[in-house]
Amino acid sequence: MGHRRLTRRTIEKYPEDQLFTFSVGGMRPFGELAFEILGMGLPSLIGVVTGEWRKAEDIHLKDIKSKAQLLERWDDATKELENLWKKVTPELLQKEDVAFGQWPGINYSLLLYVIDNEIHHRGQGFVYLRALGIEPPHFWER
Amino acid sequence: MGHRRLTRRTIEKYPEDQLFTFSVGGMRPFGELAFEILGMGLPSLIGVVTGEWRKAEDIHLKDIKSKAQLLERWDDATKELENLWKKVTPELLQKEDVAFGQWPGINYSLLLYVIDNEIHHRGQGFVYLRALGIEPPHFWER
Repeated sequence: MGHRRLTRRTIEKYPEDQLFTFSVGGMRPFGELAFEILGMGLPSLIGVVTGEWRKAEDIHLKDIKSKAQLLERWDDATKELENLWKKVTPELLQKEDVAFGQWPGINYSLLLYVIDNEIHHRGQGFVYLRALGIEPPHFWER
Repeated sequence: MGHRRLTRRTIEKYPEDQLFTFSVGGMRPFGELAFEILGMGLPSLIGVVTGEWRKAEDIHLKDIKSKAQLLERWDDATKELENLWKKVTPELLQKEDVAFGQWPGINYSLLLYVIDNEIHHRGQGFVYLRALGIEPPHFWER
């Protein structure tokens, strides 16, 4: 949740007209990296808890066209994550599953991968902000 | 250890003449971000295991002047981390301490912070590589 709050603050720092257009070195803009984070976070926890693996395409991220819509979707997913987390038991975390029907592994390892991926792409979003002359949020503030 | 291997591969991708000079948006070059990672990783684990908190300055990172020296120091620290990790017990991970005499917290939380910080800065190193026209290593390969 601390990481989600920090990523939310990172999205907020972007000027509307740069969020889905600006990038460095031919990479994806931060708005698209946020789509990837949204497409992995909640769908992974749903998969871990229910055993049903929803594809990122099924949650229609491409319908998001503005910063306000992105933040709204972000907050909705955060609420769902908070509710679902109550159902996560130590046994469930140690359970093996095949994430999204493709990646076999232990659930806790999948969830750490998803968080690592968010940190990784958010760090990239920090560089874009610096390249735009905007100070990113504090990494240590969660 | 998977993250350390990936960060090592990231260092390896840098041309010698860009490692300590190139950056984006006025940020620190990747060589300096690697100093930060080196200054936090092993010193934090030493602190957790022994209760002695060594400052980053004390490990003389500024003596490192080349990519070869950086990789050598990286590998030395990796070996020490592997050895020290054998002394980490569940009880030690749950213990409270004041990291580096400054940051109170629970040991596992500190260690996760250190790993998160490595992921964060390595992600930034990926952007620099892209800006240099160099393909970064695969994030999922550990």
